[in-house]
Amino acid sequence: MLKATGSTFIGCASDFADASLVLFGAPFDGTVSFRPGTRFAPAQIRLESVGLETYSPYFDADLTDFALCDLGDLELPFGTTARALQLIQEQARQIFQNKKKLIMIGGEHLVSLPAVTEAKRLYEDLVVLHFDAHTDLRTEYLGEPLSHATVMRRIWEVVGDGRIWQFGIRSGTREEFHWAKAGHTFLQLHDFTGLEAAIAGIGRRPVYLTIDLDVLDPSVLPGTGTPEAGGVSFLDLMTALQAVSNLNIIGGDLVELAPHYDPSGVSTAVASKVLRELIFTVSL
Amino acid sequence: MLKATGSTFIGCASDFADASLVLFGAPFDGTVSFRPGTRFAPAQIRLESVGLETYSPYFDADLTDFALCDLGDLELPFGTTARALQLIQEQARQIFQNKKKLIMIGGEHLVSLPAVTEAKRLYEDLVVLHFDAHTDLRTEYLGEPLSHATVMRRIWEVVGDGRIWQFGIRSGTREEFHWAKAGHTFLQLHDFTGLEAAIAGIGRRPVYLTIDLDVLDPSVLPGTGTPEAGGVSFLDLMTALQAVSNLNIIGGDLVELAPHYDPSGVSTAVASKVLRELIFTVSL
Amino acid sequence: MLKATGSTFIGCASDFADASLVLFGAPFDGTVSFRPGTRFAPAQIRLESVGLETYSPYFDADLTDFALCDLGDLELPFGTTARALQLIQEQARQIFQNKKKLIMIGGEHLVSLPAVTEAKRLYEDLVVLHFDAHTDLRTEYLGEPLSHATVMRRIWEVVGDGRIWQFGIRSGTREEFHWAKAGHTFLQLHDFTGLEAAIAGIGRRPVYLTIDLDVLDPSVLPGTGTPEAGGVSFLDLMTALQAVSNLNIIGGDLVELAPHYDPSGVSTAVASKVLRELIFTVSL
Amino acid sequence: MLKATGSTFIGCASDFADASLVLFGAPFDGTVSFRPGTRFAPAQIRLESVGLETYSPYFDADLTDFALCDLGDLELPFGTTARALQLIQEQARQIFQNKKKLIMIGGEHLVSLPAVTEAKRLYEDLVVLHFDAHTDLRTEYLGEPLSHATVMRRIWEVVGDGRIWQFGIRSGTREEFHWAKAGHTFLQLHDFTGLEAAIAGIGRRPVYLTIDLDVLDPSVLPGTGTPEAGGVSFLDLMTALQAVSNLNIIGGDLVELAPHYDPSGVSTAVASKVLRELIFTVSL
Amino acid sequence: MLKATGSTFIGCASDFADASLVLFGAPFDGTVSFRPGTRFAPAQIRLESVGLETYSPYFDADLTDFALCDLGDLELPFGTTARALQLIQEQARQIFQNKKKLIMIGGEHLVSLPAVTEAKRLYEDLVVLHFDAHTDLRTEYLGEPLSHATVMRRIWEVVGDGRIWQFGIRSGTREEFHWAKAGHTFLQLHDFTGLEAAIAGIGRRPVYLTIDLDVLDPSVLPGTGTPEAGGVSFLDLMTALQAVSNLNIIGGDLVELAPHYDPSGVSTAVASKVLRELIFTVSL
Amino acid sequence: MLKATGSTFIGCASDFADASLVLFGAPFDGTVSFRPGTRFAPAQIRLESVGLETYSPYFDADLTDFALCDLGDLELPFGTTARALQLIQEQARQIFQNKKKLIMIGGEHLVSLPAVTEAKRLYEDLVVLHFDAHTDLRTEYLGEPLSHATVMRRIWEVVGDGRIWQFGIRSGTREEFHWAKAGHTFLQLHDFTGLEAAIAGIGRRPVYLTIDLDVLDPSVLPGTGTPEAGGVSFLDLMTALQAVSNLNIIGGDLVELAPHYDPSGVSTAVASKVLRELIFTVSL
Repeated sequence: MLKATGSTFIGCASDFADASLVLFGAPFDGTVSFRPGTRFAPAQIRLESVGLETYSPYFDADLTDFALCDLGDLELPFGTTARALQLIQEQARQIFQNKKKLIMIGGEHLVSLPAVTEAKRLYEDLVVLHFDAHTDLRTEYLGEPLSHATVMRRIWEVVGDGRIWQFGIRSGTREEFHWAKAGHTFLQLHDFTGLEAAIAGIGRRPVYLTIDLDVLDPSVLPGTGTPEAGGVSFLDLMTALQAVSNLNIIGGDLVELAPHYDPSGVSTAVASKVLRELIFTVSL
Repeated sequence: MLKATGSTFIGCASDFADASLVLFGAPFDGTVSFRPGTRFAPAQIRLESVGLETYSPYFDADLTDFALCDLGDLELPFGTTARALQLIQEQARQIFQNKKKLIMIGGEHLVSLPAVTEAKRLYEDLVVLHFDAHTDLRTEYLGEPLSHATVMRRIWEVVGDGRIWQFGIRSGTREEFHWAKAGHTFLQLHDFTGLEAAIAGIGRRPVYLTIDLDVLDPSVLPGTGTPEAGGVSFLDLMTALQAVSNLNIIGGDLVELAPHYDPSGVSTAVASKVLRELIFTVSL
Repeated sequence: MLKATGSTFIGCASDFADASLVLFGAPFDGTVSFRPGTRFAPAQIRLESVGLETYSPYFDADLTDFALCDLGDLELPFGTTARALQLIQEQARQIFQNKKKLIMIGGEHLVSLPAVTEAKRLYEDLVVLHFDAHTDLRTEYLGEPLSHATVMRRIWEVVGDGRIWQFGIRSGTREEFHWAKAGHTFLQLHDFTGLEAAIAGIGRRPVYLTIDLDVLDPSVLPGTGTPEAGGVSFLDLMTALQAVSNLNIIGGDLVELAPHYDPSGVSTAVASKVLRELIFTVSL
Repeated sequence: MLKATGSTFIGCASDFADASLVLFGAPFDGTVSFRPGTRFAPAQIRLESVGLETYSPYFDADLTDFALCDLGDLELPFGTTARALQLIQEQARQIFQNKKKLIMIGGEHLVSLPAVTEAKRLYEDLVVLHFDAHTDLRTEYLGEPLSHATVMRRIWEVVGDGRIWQFGIRSGTREEFHWAKAGHTFLQLHDFTGLEAAIAGIGRRPVYLTIDLDVLDPSVLPGTGTPEAGGVSFLDLMTALQAVSNLNIIGGDLVELAPHYDPSGVSTAVASKVLRELIFTVSL
Repeated sequence: MLKATGSTFIGCASDFADASLVLFGAPFDGTVSFRPGTRFAPAQIRLESVGLETYSPYFDADLTDFALCDLGDLELPFGTTARALQLIQEQARQIFQNKKKLIMIGGEHLVSLPAVTEAKRLYEDLVVLHFDAHTDLRTEYLGEPLSHATVMRRIWEVVGDGRIWQFGIRSGTREEFHWAKAGHTFLQLHDFTGLEAAIAGIGRRPVYLTIDLDVLDPSVLPGTGTPEAGGVSFLDLMTALQAVSNLNIIGGDLVELAPHYDPSGVSTAVASKVLRELIFTVSL
Repeated sequence: MLKATGSTFIGCASDFADASLVLFGAPFDGTVSFRPGTRFAPAQIRLESVGLETYSPYFDADLTDFALCDLGDLELPFGTTARALQLIQEQARQIFQNKKKLIMIGGEHLVSLPAVTEAKRLYEDLVVLHFDAHTDLRTEYLGEPLSHATVMRRIWEVVGDGRIWQFGIRSGTREEFHWAKAGHTFLQLHDFTGLEAAIAGIGRRPVYLTIDLDVLDPSVLPGTGTPEAGGVSFLDLMTALQAVSNLNIIGGDLVELAPHYDPSGVSTAVASKVLRELIFTVSL
């Protein structure tokens, strides 16, 4: 009868065994150099989800139509990036090996690396869809190879050339843009132009979908570590999710919400709704 | 010579007897379950109006061209919804019976119910225009029939089938959407598509116009109780107001500003300007 | 292995059956006329408790020494005060009838009324200790008999003359102060002077201890609905709790934290620590 | 029946003609070099006063026992300090010439200069009591003789040696401290030590009491332009006001609240209560 | 090896002698009547620039390709507008006389007047491009001829009829709009319609480009003194900058960022990026 | 003539070669598990120092009496704690080897470890004075030996038994308190009781003074990662600094200011003043 507010994301109270899709939080932001705080995202998203409907007019579907499980948050150390990534990878393994779909709530973007690495072990032909404001393609950042600013380069090392599609990109170094254009990834400046072609190109291959929330314009979601003006609108993102929902998505994540940088609370409300729609995108 | 800043909305210093249009505040938010605080809206809107021009480039009109009266705020009890609604209805009666137009500043959306109920007493053929993110069509909410989430259902009980036009809607339960589509109201998802047809259908019938400010995108107005991503822009709303300004509008309201949830103050600035434009919409 | 951050208060993960003391949240603030938001307190206190130690240097005791259960929050309606109070009273009954101690996290101060009412049913000789900035002794407030501003008057009707001790009081109407001084309650202005005499007077009678967090100075805890300058310090409150911990306390509550009014987060951190110490006060 | 929230300070609704004491706001902060915003203080204090009782347990008196008038705010220009000071002086003249007591709500501290200048015209033997964190005794600041940082030096030029008592001082240049100690003013570091001697020395001479709210510790009132750690507590200030209330105070002011710098709202709540107590101090 | 964070804008560490373009801050907001605080803008923009890339995907150019100097901030007095303007003009003279391009970071909009005045001394045929939400064409404001609300009228007195192009305008008095339309300036409501025609009309004449950041929609940049709903998007502004970058721009400014009014920090991030792009616009 | 606001701490513009005392920033918070953000402290302290006087009434001394150098901030990586500590140690070496005194601005408390380690190399007989709310004596924290929660245990390994004096402590695990009391450190609960005895015991031995700003009560300084109620006042800390200023202090630090967690800005103002007084404490 009683329940702790925010102990699971709305509509995600199934047991692990019964669930077709499993959520968990990876509250890690240890490599963020600028504005930290994505570690608070999973807990705040769950609290805010209390104000959401379970019904989506975008997908005409309801969370109660599915068996969804929210495991809560991993307890991750700070100061040793490698150990945190290892714990995330073990969690991903448990989910994928039980033939369930995975949605991870970051944390900074680096948390995608162990999840993709694990997905690649099970899904040999894996491709990655990447919605972000930043290229994240550096070879290192401030001397570090493991960083939120290098994560897509590390993921490229896992999945290889021509298997990453990047949309909404509008910030990076000259070197990153040139490297991408040299054929290593598909990189779309600003928006979702070319998404239909990407969908056609991907076909039925298994897809991991990673959404850095700063792909949204800062007017929509100011609460993120490195807000970049000139992003996509919420409806642009909804349209993109509807488009990709027919792909064979085996998992995904939502990263880089930094709730404390938006005292109005709107960023968390937006992230919470994107998560609801991401669940439909992956489940349908 | 001296005056208390914010004692009336800008340009609204006429006496009640002289005024053609009368403003008042209904600072009630007693049924709000999620983020309260719309009770602070009328006072903050008046303070913020000091920074506004009286001239609107949208209507090419000036508030000083009209005789406008701002009565201040009703003193409303908390904890007993019915008593608060009764006090609002008495205030509305006094305005309508003196053949004046009415604009009410909420407060939560439930305050529209007594104003519409009273309008219906005088204007038998009343129709309602409703700009909002939410359907507000539930039969009850958390066991309560009188709630911000049920207000349009209660208003439908007052005005009847086919007399409510809803625009900008993007959140609600599956049941609400289905009920509306069954012919009880006209419901437009997301935006103002179909507004011209609505205007034609309404003709010269008397109109009550209720604007829930969350119809605006949260990037435009984050300071509201349940922000819903994917809303209309400020210019969309201005265009809609210009379009409906030729209708026979007898009164309206502006509800659901929660100023404390926007520490940048922009939400109150936007609400203040929408109120200025609403005055022109109703007066012209 | 995984857990949702903030799903229980730190160190309170025992089952109801095993627990000697049971916590629950009563997130109700429906009668608050000024600054609402205490409804958010229980969830934020649980989240913040992650940053606390389980060990108290004040009591030289550890939460892990006790069997403590946190049931989560009651789901309470808004707009009908009486129904919310009834649900709280039922919850209190379940705890007291199982011979367990009770700690309730408000919510506004009115939530104390049903808990005391229920305690009185089991503990005929009940007395009440009240730490607060406000007298809360009005007969009605804005026409309402059930209000945060009348709660101690209502409680007096339950327990009778000479059974309420009020400390830290520094705000109220002239009538309230005179009524208290006429012998109905013991009322101590500003601080805890006279607490030792009160302890002696109470003896082994069962005690309900209600702490309105605004008894603390606003410099210590700004996040409350009606902050009153000139309050007690945190160490004053710790000393008082140590002093009363030898009484026969059967239950208590912590009310009036409004987390959103303190963007620094310190108020919630303080409240969280007071709750930890209150658990020791009641348990020892 | 209706009234605009915050159109007067609580309990100050008498007409000018009937009032024994007259309040007005001087929302000027044009010489502030660091953190501006005291211009917003009068309006916010009036709004916040809605949450206050009219009864003071410190003075055992009620605002309703007096005839008090709040004129609202002067409309002051920015960019030309001299013109703003002239308008304030004219307002002070109107009040003093009608044999009424004056309380001015700043604005920055420089607004005290025209009020004291005018008071000196009527009360030849005028002395000044000054509660502040800062000496404000510079001859000029950034090249300007008229500044919040020079105001007490300018006032000294009006009233002369040995007629200014300064309490709570804890910041200034080496030159200012030495100049004061050379006998020009009585300067008390940190607190109110020596206040009884000052009261004895002042005797029945007419007193102007100027309170810079930064005399309070920033923990009590963070919302001010130049917060200085190590200030007095609220109860220290109350005790000082009680002590000086027997003097022949003919007017005073409350300056340097910058409401936007305290998002918790506590600073305005404290300032509002200090104003209530200042009214008793001047009236009794 | 060590450096103070934010001591120059990113990529602007050349010496004055070597630089082709010179930045400096004019932290003055002394005539602002509503929400002050633009004085903090230059320092916050420099701090925030640490999070920026030096590479612009909009211009496909890198700040490291140019010799750029950031002189820091002028030390300006408050309370005497004329003296502050004189100091700014002297600084502008030093830059223009050394045949360097100038970019000034305000401060309020009035700081443009001395820069344009000085530019006109060297560039006889000067024209002014003005991106803003407000007309700024009043003859005086609250009795003052020198004000942020009159700056374009004063600039018109310097450059004459037909030499000012205003874009994005959406607020002003009826008189200002009528005066502009009488042929004194080119005034474009809301957006950049007509910019191509303006570029053609300007030809190779020297251009001063003044950007009031409130030309952006408040959803993009809430941190400004008088936010006006209905503004242009960030990409609209980027497109406009790209379009005018082929003009003969000899200097420009970026004014009216008020960082404290945007606690999310996004406004400063946006302003910082606009400044980066403005540097390319002026340099290329 | 021009200078970037905040490029050095006020009054610290000497060259390294000339200076007797050298400041630098260590903006690292990579091991903080709860509320990060101390990385922003050095830059904000410098900016805020613009509002400070160079004169201290506590020491009757002026910063201009000394030759002080502020080197700015180290550029430190995130994600690899060991590398950051190494860079700090190299910086400390450069200062100590040039026979200058050192003051470091954190950053989290772990930054003290390399500075003490380096000091110990030059000053064999080194002792450590530690003002803090937390014991920081854990052997590891979340599996990590290098953490803000273990820093004093690591420092104990450097300096040995009986060479650490801890004051103001009020939070830790039961194990930490027992370990300290077993004779490893001198640990004073809550306040500075016993400081005179410590001074006597230290004698002329070289002292490193580390101040974790959370030793102050959260009412004085809310902007820190783990605020602990019940701390010392600002004047308590000033008195302690005056008392220890006669010791042979060879260096010290100021850590754990998290500016973003105090939107009022008071925490940074307090930290800035403590730094000024710390400079006198070390220099005199």
